Amino acid sequence: MFSCWLSRLCRGLSTPTGRVTHLIQGSLSRRLMLSSQRRIPELSSFVARTNTCGELRSSHLGQEVTLCGWIQYRRQNIFLVLRDFHGLVQVVIPQDESAASVKKILCEAPMESVVQVSGTVISRPPGQENPKMPTGEIEIKVKSAQLLNACKKLPFEIKDFVKKTEALRLQYRYLDLRSFQMQYNLRLRSRMVMKMREYLCNLHGFVDIETPTLFKRTPGGAKEFVIPSREPGKFYCLPQSPQQFKQLLMVGGLDRYFQVARCYRDEGSRPDRQPEFTQIDIEMSFVDQIGIRSLIEGLLQYSWPSDKDPVVVPFPSMTFAEALASYGTDKPDTRFGMKIVDISDVFRNTKVGFLQDALSKPQGTVKAICISEGAKYLKRKDIESLRKLAADHFNQEVLPVFPKANRNWNSPVAKSIMEEQRSELIRLMEIQEDGVVLLTAGEHRKACSVLGKLRLECADLLEARGLVLRDPALFSFLWVVDFPLFLPKEENPGELESAHHPFTAPHPSDIHLLHTEPKQVRSQHYDLVLNGNEIGGGSIRIHDAELQRYILATLLKEDVKLLSHLLQALDFGAPPHGGIALGLDRLICLVTGAPSIRDVIAFPKSFRGHDLMSNAPDSLPPEELKPYHIQVSWPADSEAEKSSLNQPYHPES
Amino acid sequence: MFSCWLSRLCRGLSTPTGRVTHLIQGSLSRRLMLSSQRRIPELSSFVARTNTCGELRSSHLGQEVTLCGWIQYRRQNIFLVLRDFHGLVQVVIPQDESAASVKKILCEAPMESVVQVSGTVISRPPGQENPKMPTGEIEIKVKSAQLLNACKKLPFEIKDFVKKTEALRLQYRYLDLRSFQMQYNLRLRSRMVMKMREYLCNLHGFVDIETPTLFKRTPGGAKEFVIPSREPGKFYCLPQSPQQFKQLLMVGGLDRYFQVARCYRDEGSRPDRQPEFTQIDIEMSFVDQIGIRSLIEGLLQYSWPSDKDPVVVPFPSMTFAEALASYGTDKPDTRFGMKIVDISDVFRNTKVGFLQDALSKPQGTVKAICISEGAKYLKRKDIESLRKLAADHFNQEVLPVFPKANRNWNSPVAKSIMEEQRSELIRLMEIQEDGVVLLTAGEHRKACSVLGKLRLECADLLEARGLVLRDPALFSFLWVVDFPLFLPKEENPGELESAHHPFTAPHPSDIHLLHTEPKQVRSQHYDLVLNGNEIGGGSIRIHDAELQRYILATLLKEDVKLLSHLLQALDFGAPPHGGIALGLDRLICLVTGAPSIRDVIAFPKSFRGHDLMSNAPDSLPPEELKPYHIQVSWPADSEAEKSSLNQPYHPES
Repeated sequence: MFSCWLSRLCRGLSTPTGRVTHLIQGSLSRRLMLSSQRRIPELSSFVARTNTCGELRSSHLGQEVTLCGWIQYRRQNIFLVLRDFHGLVQVVIPQDESAASVKKILCEAPMESVVQVSGTVISRPPGQENPKMPTGEIEIKVKSAQLLNACKKLPFEIKDFVKKTEALRLQYRYLDLRSFQMQYNLRLRSRMVMKMREYLCNLHGFVDIETPTLFKRTPGGAKEFVIPSREPGKFYCLPQSPQQFKQLLMVGGLDRYFQVARCYRDEGSRPDRQPEFTQIDIEMSFVDQIGIRSLIEGLLQYSWPSDKDPVVVPFPSMTFAEALASYGTDKPDTRFGMKIVDISDVFRNTKVGFLQDALSKPQGTVKAICISEGAKYLKRKDIESLRKLAADHFNQEVLPVFPKANRNWNSPVAKSIMEEQRSELIRLMEIQEDGVVLLTAGEHRKACSVLGKLRLECADLLEARGLVLRDPALFSFLWVVDFPLFLPKEENPGELESAHHPFTAPHPSDIHLLHTEPKQVRSQHYDLVLNGNEIGGGSIRIHDAELQRYILATLLKEDVKLLSHLLQALDFGAPPHGGIALGLDRLICLVTGAPSIRDVIAFPKSFRGHDLMSNAPDSLPPEELKPYHIQVSWPADSEAEKSSLNQPYHPES
Repeated sequence: MFSCWLSRLCRGLSTPTGRVTHLIQGSLSRRLMLSSQRRIPELSSFVARTNTCGELRSSHLGQEVTLCGWIQYRRQNIFLVLRDFHGLVQVVIPQDESAASVKKILCEAPMESVVQVSGTVISRPPGQENPKMPTGEIEIKVKSAQLLNACKKLPFEIKDFVKKTEALRLQYRYLDLRSFQMQYNLRLRSRMVMKMREYLCNLHGFVDIETPTLFKRTPGGAKEFVIPSREPGKFYCLPQSPQQFKQLLMVGGLDRYFQVARCYRDEGSRPDRQPEFTQIDIEMSFVDQIGIRSLIEGLLQYSWPSDKDPVVVPFPSMTFAEALASYGTDKPDTRFGMKIVDISDVFRNTKVGFLQDALSKPQGTVKAICISEGAKYLKRKDIESLRKLAADHFNQEVLPVFPKANRNWNSPVAKSIMEEQRSELIRLMEIQEDGVVLLTAGEHRKACSVLGKLRLECADLLEARGLVLRDPALFSFLWVVDFPLFLPKEENPGELESAHHPFTAPHPSDIHLLHTEPKQVRSQHYDLVLNGNEIGGGSIRIHDAELQRYILATLLKEDVKLLSHLLQALDFGAPPHGGIALGLDRLICLVTGAPSIRDVIAFPKSFRGHDLMSNAPDSLPPEELKPYHIQVSWPADSEAEKSSLNQPYHPES
């Protein structure tokens, strides 16, 4: 039993996706620190201990040590396992009469109590070494002990194999942080950000500049938190990014700016989003797209954890048009194939009704993906659920076709397709035995989108059946470029809105189209995609005030007064500039293989934006709102709630 | 003229207090970078230029270079001085017919336009070298030029000798940032913080952890900005510090935490305070006061700019009682003497009425400071203004006495004092020729406070007359310790409030007094003072839940429900811990010698809390407040204003 959970703890560094990392031999923080710099940090400077629990080895034999830690486990009042952030160590509880007081302290302290022990590092008796435990060759012969703090009954055990709901973990976050996985995630995050800072500051002369978070509403900034000021009716806003400030810093000649910037976005309840998040925010003067891309490739390569496979640069790139056509999304997961193929030409003379219909329209296409080994691994109900997904979420008909497999549940339509275009399909899509084709028809973007979604669903299904499509050790970076500069407004497709933000520069080859066909203009925006997740995005910015005014006022019909300071700045000698922002939470989440960004943030909010530990947001007594000249407008349907609150302050409510 | 302003620019690194730094030989950023690390950052990686303007020297002769920068100056269409963040370089405008287009670009571009030039580094003709300019031995023979952005007429010139009001500087902050002083301040800040990070992360194993800024109201947190959420009546608050989170991280076993943390404090209008500010926030487990102090001494020593005198450690320390008695403040400026002396004993048998009165009271004292050379440097009106200050702000009588100087404006009372106690005073206070004594009587704390204030005023007066009391090159650090744990509440002196915050641990020697004489209990709080400014403070925290509950509920009468999560955390195996926070803005302000913290912040708010550049805080249309269930309560006296606003949205108002 003992060695069982202990070895699990020591092996507890495998990522949640199931990948066993190379960390089994050493405790995690040691590895992290050893690998990322030459000089090992002093982990016991300035404090009561002489050593950490996790660092002791045979090389320490005979040393007098003082350790501080939590009681992880006690066996028959003879052994005690002490834990700190660095690892576990076995302490021998003295049994002789003269050490009765030490024995009493160590035997009576509840689990997870904090103790300080002093003693000698000794060898374990022959045969009792634990090779699965980094400190398994030694133990501590205790001379003195002190109970620093007794622990009351815990809501859950601090053992990785004890399953807890996420709500319970968040309510007692300070206990959850003691888990090996949370310690690993937060320490890796800290190290990786430190390496990024070294790369930016020390290697490339970037200046770390803090920009304000008490700012004002940006045009169209509907997702910005508002903060009342002491001036009646005047509000600050928490910015979604330091976009304006970083551009103004370039106008100010700061030349190379970066910041690990806290950003805010009020999206209400959305799973796996946080109302506050962190981005690696970068801006440079006199740079082009290739310059920014090289910078970021170098940054990730330099800061990449050494226990992962090294990052290979340069990253491949793909145009937005290509990403949409082949993967049905602007953030393709390029770890596996199953690309979308346009098979319209195969069906030019089809007699199948719905394909004929689709192709007779001006934008009509027929598209398909081929699921290799699909006939072997997917069940009929899988295919049905995929079709239902397409119908429910995209209103698209999807047809499964088994061109080579002998399945008896092909529909009559599919059978007819097979007979007509079977060989052409097999050739075009390189279909192997057991390949399944999912086929759809319609307008290009829509057909691609539905197949892009089904492609990911199929990958999940196949992996649930045991196939490995996406190697969890593989980090597949991709630049997506040449996005459109504008999109039709959702609520009013006759008007334009920025595909990204209004400061994005148009593609130099398309500038002539700005006045004639703005919808055709590509931008100098670029996205960085990792394993199908957007982890960054940026652009070369507009530095010409006239062009910026034209886009804001004429094309986007924005109120330029709100941005007068930025427009004026462009007039006063703004250098050409560009930048990027990396989403740090998402990046660390992918690197650690954590199931959620909440696992790489020390104190995250729940998906409803609540701090389950402290109960934020909370009610406030009306007198605390007075200095800000605001009052609560209770919604009509909460009249009951309001009267139950009866205006005074209910902190527990 | 040319060499005049140019040399000023190159010498522009003297601090605003007038101290000439050692930076005359090199341009500032180069110095900063060279000095603080071995590897020189590549300042031209990834961008259009091959070199920075400021880096070119004779060693570059013959090289083909491409430079990007701002036109600083043009002389007779022959020379042009190009500026970037790194310095200035002289460009020779080609005069031959074949280069007419290059000449046209360089001669017609307005000042502060952005240009890119390519050419060869050549020697200046003999006799034309400029030894005051780091690039003064060379110039650029231009082959091609490109106007990257033309500059419109500026509101002020980008030259350090052109005086601007601070309001104008803040309105056009992006132009102000081009000044050498702002570039120096922000770059020094970035470098110093980076060195701090290296010390904490790389040398001592600290973990950089981000804590939330959307939190809830803390008890007594009257200065916290509130943020309405989408739940009616529920508010987040912006925390004044990560205090609770850093303690919870210790409970979570993170062991060594730091963060360069954004903090918020809504104090309305206060000069030289900012509603958002930054602190170096640190917390450690298993540490005592000496441990924290050693850590911080090492931190400052390691990160100190190499162009300043090195930091000498350990810093001296002083108890709060001693600081009050000798300097009349808890943040003594120890760069000069003029200490407060208790001269009560000299006057035990005095016949001077107001001294007799004071000494007859149980807490009565007579105190004095001696202004050396005061009689030589101070005028009668100076002394009168000091007395008036004491009377107006402290309601204290202050008497000037000239024990050795022959001044004819001693009052009759002072004359009588002189006759009685002259020799004893001269002995006790070591009064020299021309020494002036300022004497006051009353309760200890009050008498000390007034003399502490007058001491600083005297120093200002003497320095205005040419004496140097406080060497601007001197950085005088001091720990102040042994503060009282509680103070009587200002509004109700019968009740107690925390002198710092309720999590501060009592001094171990005084714990027995907690139940009997809580006012007598000293705390384990410590302040770090630099040149009379508090630049940091921290404490060993309470880790015992019972003690924390007793202090919160019984002594402070706080609602413990608001802190139930913290109290519970202490019950679940909280390690002993302590920490500190350094005020980064103030620290950098003192290091750079800037006149205001606004000069070390890229985009500061005005003293009224406004962003003069973007006009934040700003009005919002009522519909943008709707999702947050709040409405503005217009104050009665602004009815006129309100009706003029007529409820709709006036962005320009």
